[in-house]
Amino acid sequence: MRNIEEYISGYVDGEGCFTVTFNKRDKAKIGWELRPSFSVSQNEERRQVLDIIQKYFGCGFIRRDYSDRTVKFEIRDHIQLRDRVIPHFERFPLLSNKQKDFELFREVCKIIDHGGHLTKSGFIKIVNFAYRMNGSGKRKRTSQEIIRNLK
Amino acid sequence: MRNIEEYISGYVDGEGCFTVTFNKRDKAKIGWELRPSFSVSQNEERRQVLDIIQKYFGCGFIRRDYSDRTVKFEIRDHIQLRDRVIPHFERFPLLSNKQKDFELFREVCKIIDHGGHLTKSGFIKIVNFAYRMNGSGKRKRTSQEIIRNLK
Repeated sequence: MRNIEEYISGYVDGEGCFTVTFNKRDKAKIGWELRPSFSVSQNEERRQVLDIIQKYFGCGFIRRDYSDRTVKFEIRDHIQLRDRVIPHFERFPLLSNKQKDFELFREVCKIIDHGGHLTKSGFIKIVNFAYRMNGSGKRKRTSQEIIRNLK
Repeated sequence: MRNIEEYISGYVDGEGCFTVTFNKRDKAKIGWELRPSFSVSQNEERRQVLDIIQKYFGCGFIRRDYSDRTVKFEIRDHIQLRDRVIPHFERFPLLSNKQKDFELFREVCKIIDHGGHLTKSGFIKIVNFAYRMNGSGKRKRTSQEIIRNLK
């Protein structure tokens, strides 16, 4: 019998990603669209583990990126993130400092859960959490650019 | 209590590598030096899991690659590969087709264990196993180039 939960946490610690992206959207109440996402990427030849992860979480979708022959498993739905992804990583935490990204991600999801993302102050908190995550150096906008352009 | 064994297999399934390299060496009886290696690479910022893996296996070394800011954990010693690495992945197999690389790697280690790598026929078997592993497309020599140059 395998302990698949631990296996998945180990795999995600290497290959997974917690991220929150922001897209300008004039129609949105606050002027920005917010997208939290949990994803795991892999080369096409080795997508088996993504299928296992999808089956384990019982949600999310897998899509191909034809540009670089990778396949990505992703969960974006807030309820699924809240009820399936976050509890998993609370029970089986990551052992690298990617765990900090998870904790920031969880804070963002908590704010969204209470509707805080629809208020200016809540949204600013989210931006600040998201920009403390690893990989934020690659973002095309600074956090100040987003905050300045809030409606 | 964590099930660290499964976590490590999951992590290795994403980030680990089983490989056998060949270096021309005129002083070697057979003309080639053989190096089986199990390794796991990671960015410097996230080396914690490598420390955990090293502690778990109780052997191997961690070294920095200053060129690309990665850190690599590696086990090369035959006895450690045979007695620690291989039994681990027999008990907690990889779930992607990287498992096939492990199985080929194990075959190579078995041949070495019986001294077969010191014979021409054994060495040819090893070369053929090694060149069936994933990532062999990146090798600078073909298997035929090695086999042709055996003493």
